[in-house]
Amino acid sequence: MSGYRVAVVGATGLVGQEIVKCLEQRKFPCISLRLLSADRSASREAAPSPREPAVEGLSNSAFDEADLVFFATGLDIARQFAPLAIKAGAVVIDSSPAWRMDPDVPLIVPEINAAELRAHKGLVAAPGGTTVALTMALYPLHRVNPLKHVVVCTYESVSGAGSAAQEELSSQARQVLEGRTVVPHMFPHQIAFNLLPEVEVFLDNGYSRAEWNLVEETRKILRAEGLPVSTTCVRVPVFVGHAAAVHVEFSNPMAPEDVRKQLVEFPGVRVLDDPDVSLYPQPWFASGSDDVLVGRIRRDASSSSGLSMWVVIDNLRKGAALNVVQIAEELVRRGQIPEGGKRHGQVGASSDSHGDPVL
Amino acid sequence: MSGYRVAVVGATGLVGQEIVKCLEQRKFPCISLRLLSADRSASREAAPSPREPAVEGLSNSAFDEADLVFFATGLDIARQFAPLAIKAGAVVIDSSPAWRMDPDVPLIVPEINAAELRAHKGLVAAPGGTTVALTMALYPLHRVNPLKHVVVCTYESVSGAGSAAQEELSSQARQVLEGRTVVPHMFPHQIAFNLLPEVEVFLDNGYSRAEWNLVEETRKILRAEGLPVSTTCVRVPVFVGHAAAVHVEFSNPMAPEDVRKQLVEFPGVRVLDDPDVSLYPQPWFASGSDDVLVGRIRRDASSSSGLSMWVVIDNLRKGAALNVVQIAEELVRRGQIPEGGKRHGQVGASSDSHGDPVL
Repeated sequence: MSGYRVAVVGATGLVGQEIVKCLEQRKFPCISLRLLSADRSASREAAPSPREPAVEGLSNSAFDEADLVFFATGLDIARQFAPLAIKAGAVVIDSSPAWRMDPDVPLIVPEINAAELRAHKGLVAAPGGTTVALTMALYPLHRVNPLKHVVVCTYESVSGAGSAAQEELSSQARQVLEGRTVVPHMFPHQIAFNLLPEVEVFLDNGYSRAEWNLVEETRKILRAEGLPVSTTCVRVPVFVGHAAAVHVEFSNPMAPEDVRKQLVEFPGVRVLDDPDVSLYPQPWFASGSDDVLVGRIRRDASSSSGLSMWVVIDNLRKGAALNVVQIAEELVRRGQIPEGGKRHGQVGASSDSHGDPVL
Repeated sequence: MSGYRVAVVGATGLVGQEIVKCLEQRKFPCISLRLLSADRSASREAAPSPREPAVEGLSNSAFDEADLVFFATGLDIARQFAPLAIKAGAVVIDSSPAWRMDPDVPLIVPEINAAELRAHKGLVAAPGGTTVALTMALYPLHRVNPLKHVVVCTYESVSGAGSAAQEELSSQARQVLEGRTVVPHMFPHQIAFNLLPEVEVFLDNGYSRAEWNLVEETRKILRAEGLPVSTTCVRVPVFVGHAAAVHVEFSNPMAPEDVRKQLVEFPGVRVLDDPDVSLYPQPWFASGSDDVLVGRIRRDASSSSGLSMWVVIDNLRKGAALNVVQIAEELVRRGQIPEGGKRHGQVGASSDSHGDPVL
């Protein structure tokens, strides 16, 4: 029997659930699929429905029988448990920010830099959803006309903060519509019918973590180390789908028609751009889309080499789950995951075979 | 008796109502106040409540007894009727985009360029709400450190499209929460829990009217003719309050502390900026504020002379109604409105006394 023993950590979260869905939809060659969750106690594993596999708690031995482990958790869980999975001989694909900027860890959007997987040492990182959106929209252009400056303002849905944040948006919206007072829990202030320029914690330099990550991850994926990238990240009262207004300066002038042509031909990008009939990407209708959607492509009247556009992504799907499953597919295609049952005999279970940048 | 015979055209709209409120709150010296509306038929004038003055229909003779007329209407009504008001001898303050870019019409944010009122020829224009927010946040900095480049992404509430748009947001939000299908009326697509990068009509150059106006009005008010300004304007599911993420490049480096100092000292600007305690401007809490609120002031790590900030305005108040009432107050202070009862004897009712750029 050919295939991989797969585990998903954070399987009860929005991204974890979407990973399981993507694995099924894309018929990823699993010979087994273990669902793991840090907040799942043993007692709650008892009675899964026949259609729903049991979710197990996380333990030090959770990865003993895994070839491939997806982490769809926060940074802390990934930092604590991903090294154990690697040590046990699995390849880890981590969607948390834990090792994204580690120079020894490839940070991958497969359409852009799958080739960098060849250097992986047991751990591959996936960028945040806004970075996927931004880099997918910029890379096809950057490779023919190098970017000189990028300004990006995000409009990020609450799903980036998990299902409890979605429930908070629902319940707050109801409260506002009923004229009741809102007491925030998941966000520092009311998010319903409001805007919060705070996505993740603030750093000493005045940036939020999300803003800083977007800058650094974009530079790493585009291999554009000194590229000036200016960011503001804002949480908006939308359930799913992140958007970004992108203003760039290229090395040379580039007509909107050329931009559209480059984007249309790039896999994973869909151009929705006909303002005359109000056609442009919208988060409400992007939900469930596998593509990064780009519209409002226009010359920046302020600058001969300037261009503006509007990008929308389903942050749970291509922004997170689909991207990590695509990474796994690339690893399979390249023969970079030892197959289940063969591995221990062939490659050995010691962490040395993978190297280990993170322990 | 000293004072002015005032008329408000568009008195039933959100901005018109707010103008009436501002006139009362600020004790503007009215000796009479006529409320006019283009969509008010004579039959509906009949039974006003004692506390609510009657709203009259618009007619060619509506301005015969007016010294000062506020237009809080769309562009078409302003284009049709403002010239009649000027011809009748009144000074017109127009909040519509009809004459904002006319070189003979001063475009005024009083804190910035009240001095330009001296050149008015019977008509003064007020900028859009996002322009007020942007120029109020930039002018105090620009005058000490000239701007070289501005990128601004807006997050605009539905109130910019009137009270029917607010009702549409409410009813759509209810429908979504109840799992029902939404049919859009005021906007081309669903606005509840969604984002629309379409504010006003699209132009041939790919900009929306709102984006283009923001560029042109900002340059005119800052007297910065060739200043590169890049804009994306987005409608967000918020009832009142427009926000803008602003990324600028100055001529010289400017420390965030200096920026804060300049802004704090400028009348009409309030700095709310302490990320450690999640203090920053938010539209929900800006509603009713007379100030332009600025926060998230930080050095742009990409550029030694770059700065980023987040600006929020009550678009109905300082973004529209308060600004035009402040313009009126400045005109009074400067003796630039002939007073009621005296005018016809002193200045004459012919349009010649004011000049007339617009007929």
